Amino acid sequence: MGSGNKQTNYLLGIDIGGTKLAVGVVTPEGRVVAQERIPTQVEEGPERVIARLQGLCHAAVTAAGITWDQIRACGVGCGGPLDPERGVVMNPPNLPGWVEVPLVQILADAFGRPVYLDNDANAAALAEHRFGAGRGVQNMVYLTISTGIGGGIILGGRLYSGETGNAGEIGHMSVVYNGRPCNCGGRGCLEAYASGPSIAARAREAVEAGEPSLLLDLAGSPDGITGETIKEALLRGDPLARRIWDETMEILGAGLASVINIFNPRRIVLGGGMTNYGDLLFEPVRRIARARAMRPLAEPVDIVPAQLGNDVGILGAAAVVLERLESRAAEVGSHV
Amino acid sequence: MGSGNKQTNYLLGIDIGGTKLAVGVVTPEGRVVAQERIPTQVEEGPERVIARLQGLCHAAVTAAGITWDQIRACGVGCGGPLDPERGVVMNPPNLPGWVEVPLVQILADAFGRPVYLDNDANAAALAEHRFGAGRGVQNMVYLTISTGIGGGIILGGRLYSGETGNAGEIGHMSVVYNGRPCNCGGRGCLEAYASGPSIAARAREAVEAGEPSLLLDLAGSPDGITGETIKEALLRGDPLARRIWDETMEILGAGLASVINIFNPRRIVLGGGMTNYGDLLFEPVRRIARARAMRPLAEPVDIVPAQLGNDVGILGAAAVVLERLESRAAEVGSHV
Repeated sequence: MGSGNKQTNYLLGIDIGGTKLAVGVVTPEGRVVAQERIPTQVEEGPERVIARLQGLCHAAVTAAGITWDQIRACGVGCGGPLDPERGVVMNPPNLPGWVEVPLVQILADAFGRPVYLDNDANAAALAEHRFGAGRGVQNMVYLTISTGIGGGIILGGRLYSGETGNAGEIGHMSVVYNGRPCNCGGRGCLEAYASGPSIAARAREAVEAGEPSLLLDLAGSPDGITGETIKEALLRGDPLARRIWDETMEILGAGLASVINIFNPRRIVLGGGMTNYGDLLFEPVRRIARARAMRPLAEPVDIVPAQLGNDVGILGAAAVVLERLESRAAEVGSHV
Repeated sequence: MGSGNKQTNYLLGIDIGGTKLAVGVVTPEGRVVAQERIPTQVEEGPERVIARLQGLCHAAVTAAGITWDQIRACGVGCGGPLDPERGVVMNPPNLPGWVEVPLVQILADAFGRPVYLDNDANAAALAEHRFGAGRGVQNMVYLTISTGIGGGIILGGRLYSGETGNAGEIGHMSVVYNGRPCNCGGRGCLEAYASGPSIAARAREAVEAGEPSLLLDLAGSPDGITGETIKEALLRGDPLARRIWDETMEILGAGLASVINIFNPRRIVLGGGMTNYGDLLFEPVRRIARARAMRPLAEPVDIVPAQLGNDVGILGAAAVVLERLESRAAEVGSHV
């Protein structure tokens, strides 16, 4: 406030995760002016979590040295499924107890500003497209590979969200039609093989079946096996860790080849914790995806790491606002 | 000519297939005024085939009782890969010897009318969307299941064609990442299991492996097994035919569930020879796709047969023209 800054186009980006809440004041150019984070404590239920979230929003606005009048609108990124049009969180697996929560209404009433909601993978795709690894690209597919696998699809420079706002569930493309059961109720989904917990589960099963491996020494017990122990065993040349990893890369590469054949995209952006493996992941995945995709579609695509790191949640929520305002303007234009 | 008809917005739809050439004069409302068909005789090579194709176009215009002045533009549907922007047929597997053929240039020079080119699956998707099973739908995925599996994607009411015009290769989504080799060079593609020839090949392999079956009696030899013999054996209760068919339906259903999870479409339209199986195909595929897809995405979608039958090639080629003219108009509008 002391700055005398009168700019009125700030965005408030609100990122609701299963483990943490993050709120940031963001400029339209994607600069984070101030941010605040607290644990979600999801066990408290939606009412108390949303009350603490509101406090966090006020704290972020104060920390930015601005007033609520200077916030153009708020964006919220949250686990799906949700209804972006009605602004309702439906029943996300990572937020147990959040059943049909009218989040947009609650926050709009509290702050007196417009509020826009989308799922966290769409939000991240929008942020990478606008501020990160997808800048200037018309046709881009974003995947976040972490405890789950989420996706967001940018076509013709705009988010594609489908008939009811839930498109982009690329993690639930079946890569082994009769394969492992998936959390979503389907079978053999990409997520059931290549998410962090799925990789650990596959390694655990192999160890429990008696395959000798360094993994058991590193983890203490089969239940102790995590992404980290697998990475360590991989780097020490453990054959079991190598087999599980190679299989995972083949599956992920096959999944990306399918994405290429379906979307003929210019760029695929990979984010999420699993991409911390770096070249251990990108080198084989690029090679396999390119070899398996159809030639004329494999040529124009590149597969790159996300760029926004820990800020992607806040920037994504802010990008949801910008996308919504612009696509509304474009619609008005096209009806001229 | 005798009719005194002065209408000048007819479209010439040109369908180039591996076995037949079809040309029709079509109104913008999708009425076929006149049509002509001849065998492709692909072994003659592109030059002679294109010469005969030109004769066929003249014959269709004459049969319609109009002059070339009354044709607004020509559309061509042809096997891919091709470059719709440059108007070049690149090297389609079903047209051996057609390497980098500048088809649009050749036909535009010959007829003095604008010519637009797209692949046959995109053309069929456009026709079903405009004139057939997809009328009024914003988000629709079309699959043709026949000797191959092709796809076309309509999003927000417009064809989505990707970065280089080759999007929609849904038949080359891998449903068994380490599965059967596919014609495309990939592995375990939907086409490698659920196209007509793939189903027959899987049945043939089972018979050759010694599984007892009516199929051998019906077909005379393993090589004689076709879609028709499988259907006949299925209807007579043959267990091998039943197993192959059930497996195929599970795979096709899983593939459609992936399409639903990725696109969140309002409608999936299935065409091509395999859909002549009728309820034998639609009943299980609907049930399986719906059960495997994520709940909020399974609800809004329906899976329906294509409606345009044998006219889809000609109507599709005509629809390519209409789509191209309209999306150009929309682009101009959006830049206002």
